[in-house]
Amino acid sequence: MSSADERVASLLTPAPGPDIASRDAVAARASRVLRPAGALARLDEVAAWLAAWQRSSKPAVQRPSAIVFVGDHGVAARGVSAYPAAVTEAMLRALREGVATAAAMARSVGAGIRVVDVGTGRPTGDITVEPALGIERHEECFETGRAAVADTECDLLVVGEMGIGNTTPAAAIAASLYGGPAEVWTGRGTGIDDETWTRKVAAVEAARSRLAPDAGPIEILRRCGGSELSAIAGAITEARARSIPVVLDGFVVTAAAAPLDVLVAGALDHCVAGHRSPEPGHSLMLEKLAKQPLLDLELRLGEASGALAAVPLIRLAAAAVTEVATFEEWGLA
Amino acid sequence: MSSADERVASLLTPAPGPDIASRDAVAARASRVLRPAGALARLDEVAAWLAAWQRSSKPAVQRPSAIVFVGDHGVAARGVSAYPAAVTEAMLRALREGVATAAAMARSVGAGIRVVDVGTGRPTGDITVEPALGIERHEECFETGRAAVADTECDLLVVGEMGIGNTTPAAAIAASLYGGPAEVWTGRGTGIDDETWTRKVAAVEAARSRLAPDAGPIEILRRCGGSELSAIAGAITEARARSIPVVLDGFVVTAAAAPLDVLVAGALDHCVAGHRSPEPGHSLMLEKLAKQPLLDLELRLGEASGALAAVPLIRLAAAAVTEVATFEEWGLA
Repeated sequence: MSSADERVASLLTPAPGPDIASRDAVAARASRVLRPAGALARLDEVAAWLAAWQRSSKPAVQRPSAIVFVGDHGVAARGVSAYPAAVTEAMLRALREGVATAAAMARSVGAGIRVVDVGTGRPTGDITVEPALGIERHEECFETGRAAVADTECDLLVVGEMGIGNTTPAAAIAASLYGGPAEVWTGRGTGIDDETWTRKVAAVEAARSRLAPDAGPIEILRRCGGSELSAIAGAITEARARSIPVVLDGFVVTAAAAPLDVLVAGALDHCVAGHRSPEPGHSLMLEKLAKQPLLDLELRLGEASGALAAVPLIRLAAAAVTEVATFEEWGLA
Repeated sequence: MSSADERVASLLTPAPGPDIASRDAVAARASRVLRPAGALARLDEVAAWLAAWQRSSKPAVQRPSAIVFVGDHGVAARGVSAYPAAVTEAMLRALREGVATAAAMARSVGAGIRVVDVGTGRPTGDITVEPALGIERHEECFETGRAAVADTECDLLVVGEMGIGNTTPAAAIAASLYGGPAEVWTGRGTGIDDETWTRKVAAVEAARSRLAPDAGPIEILRRCGGSELSAIAGAITEARARSIPVVLDGFVVTAAAAPLDVLVAGALDHCVAGHRSPEPGHSLMLEKLAKQPLLDLELRLGEASGALAAVPLIRLAAAAVTEVATFEEWGLA
């Protein structure tokens, strides 16, 4: 196991598990509130999950906050995306100035949003011929992710990303972690044509083939990923240490999170899947992670958009348990 | 055609269609905002739909409001539900006092909620042996539904219902409108066992078999439905006349709305399906109505809950077009 894998494991292993007492209290209340048993089963589960990680029998979403990590990718020069890499920086500015989709969505759902640049104008290595990140840079990005969470006051954390070309590293990580043909993990990203997709599949396969057969999951993340993916892994690790519930966005965020689960089973128990993206690899990863997404609207933007869209559902799931009377309180047997 | 059918047709036929200019303006803007074309296609369609019925190229959900119609059902005495009919009135009080699920959800999503009693303690006829409503009472309920909408200031209307036993009339309406075996349209409602379900199927078949072969859709609604179902049909009709966009809740609301679509094609174009319920008949009806639900979380409560849960998505869909800069505005080709 690489030293990076060992270090992340040493952060995850001692992190607290769910607060069983709060979880069970909310699940019990959900079974007694004024509605037929199980009528909102899926939302009741979300409320109990929120209770477990907020460590409170009165879970609530009052201060949700999104962090969007942004980076550039060397592999974008291989022509794997429908957009030029320069778009990353323009989108970074748009996110910061509140005119990008995720910024509008955050306002709409009452969430804070923070944009963290971990690498625009400083692309990662081209994963088809070299590691995405050197050991030091990976470490730096991972720590930036942790620090961003440590700095964010929130009761629900949304994690997102922006980075032209980053579904290629995401597919490379997933293919390397879980095996199977590269084609299965490689999707259309921002909407590429067949020729571009063929190049993308080749890039995914090339990145994977460069790995040592015993590469650990964090080593896979470092070599096949990118700056914002390492930062996301750091953010999710820190959220786990602080018992902050997390909403995962789509394919790229899930690919950045999955190595944590492969490294330490249950490391993503504090995470809920906000939505299912149409990237075929996303559904496969959600299956591996045993996570059922809240939304299935074929959103394929990233930027935390799918996760932000799920925030009101989590807020409402909690309210539907904590703010509804029980049959007993309402004088009904 | 019955006089009730003729009257409703005379309300629907002259009602305004969608505002094409606003719809097209929003669809055009959605194709130019700062994201890959089609990345949020499903939400962009919702934004354009909202624009069409709010008759504004700046659609927004600022004053959503729910109306929950409540009634009692004679057929409940046939043992078709897991709950006694007395629960309807207790739930009416809980809704009014803000401690029922829909009340908590409305607060959570920033929606108003109003509860309209159209028949508790005054059950409809048992549809297995007589019409649910006489001509006058049907008319009265339909008009109550219209008046409730006329009295409600809102930019998005959510329609819901509560009434022990009311998935039986809903199934009877759907089976009568669309044909096919009663079994196909009859689900588990609040969670009934096999024996109760068998009785419920028989009740649905009995209600349908009492209809004249040429019964019009509103006649079907009157005979197989119930007080809150007639009120819902009235509310949706009035919303159409006023060009107010509507979010449909689950099986019962959709069954009350469907006769309008059978009567006048396109009568439900101002309605979006908030969610898909696990009632098998709901999916079938949504197919007949060519409506794709926003949520699919196996919610089976009614009370407007599934539609309320979808409100933030509609609000967010609009914001993601109106509040996001275009590539041009942002200085990108």
